[in-house]
Amino acid sequence: MLDSSNNSAVKIEVQPEPAEPVTGGGGGGGGILQQWSREDLIKRGSLGLRGLALFFSLISLILVASNKHGGWADFDKYPQYRYLLAIAILSCFYTGGQVHLGVHELSTGRKMLQPRIAVLFDFIGDQIMAYLLISSASSAIPITDTIREGGDNIFTDSSSSAISMSFLAFICLALSAIISGHKLSAQTCI
Amino acid sequence: MLDSSNNSAVKIEVQPEPAEPVTGGGGGGGGILQQWSREDLIKRGSLGLRGLALFFSLISLILVASNKHGGWADFDKYPQYRYLLAIAILSCFYTGGQVHLGVHELSTGRKMLQPRIAVLFDFIGDQIMAYLLISSASSAIPITDTIREGGDNIFTDSSSSAISMSFLAFICLALSAIISGHKLSAQTCI
Repeated sequence: MLDSSNNSAVKIEVQPEPAEPVTGGGGGGGGILQQWSREDLIKRGSLGLRGLALFFSLISLILVASNKHGGWADFDKYPQYRYLLAIAILSCFYTGGQVHLGVHELSTGRKMLQPRIAVLFDFIGDQIMAYLLISSASSAIPITDTIREGGDNIFTDSSSSAISMSFLAFICLALSAIISGHKLSAQTCI
Repeated sequence: MLDSSNNSAVKIEVQPEPAEPVTGGGGGGGGILQQWSREDLIKRGSLGLRGLALFFSLISLILVASNKHGGWADFDKYPQYRYLLAIAILSCFYTGGQVHLGVHELSTGRKMLQPRIAVLFDFIGDQIMAYLLISSASSAIPITDTIREGGDNIFTDSSSSAISMSFLAFICLALSAIISGHKLSAQTCI
């Protein structure tokens, strides 16, 4: 009996548990699995935020572009709304491209761009798009207020909805820019 | 000849260079001195950018606040200019406070706030002030253009100068926000 129990103890010793690889810092006390799940969370969070930004920009684009009711109630008579439309289009292209890249990376596991270039491009792109979106929303607010003084109608309602959508897209991209900035710095300090 | 050359080779080996202290990551291969000088550069760069932002915000504030020429040419008749003024005042307070803290830290070497809180406060403050400045400048541009259609005068000139100054303050704070974001991430990953 004693022999057999000794044998089993030897067997257990012979089969060692898979050693945890030493990664040399990263996350402060967490193992590599924890770091991976955190990276995955950041990646999915970033993709989700850009997806939301794409959705909001697309609605803003449709709302402005369809805001033609003849006479003074045409969006293209006001440079502010043309600017809002231009930035919404730009934001759709940018966030659409980013979502495409992100989904491709998640599904195939391969990156289309070099990691260093991709992270820098992400950060600069997110930050500049966020500034452009807040700028276009801010420039379109005063003219909408001025037209609204003469009474609310379908033109002012569509305009203010489009402004709100651009503002929501801005919030998403501002948060995404924080994540991209974190990724960029994490890459430099590893 | 061969002997003396051998001796000199030994001498070189005997006098070892001062060993580079191992810091455990930071800057990729650079020593602790290099890391210190980089940190110092970042600190001074951040302070310089905020000093510039304070200067530009102050000029913008003075230009808007003194832009009263009677009748329609009073800045406070237009909500856009009041917004521009409000943000310029806020930016003066914020950048003034930050410059004060920075100069105090450089001269005494002591920090007035806990490092972790200070870095977070820096990043959020810079980022929000940058968004507010670009927003106020963008909202004031269309009204200035509209007034300018009736001809240039001292009112429109002062307004456009104030807008330019707010825009320059935005550029400084946007760059400062990148530095603060880097400091925040560097702190988290150390």
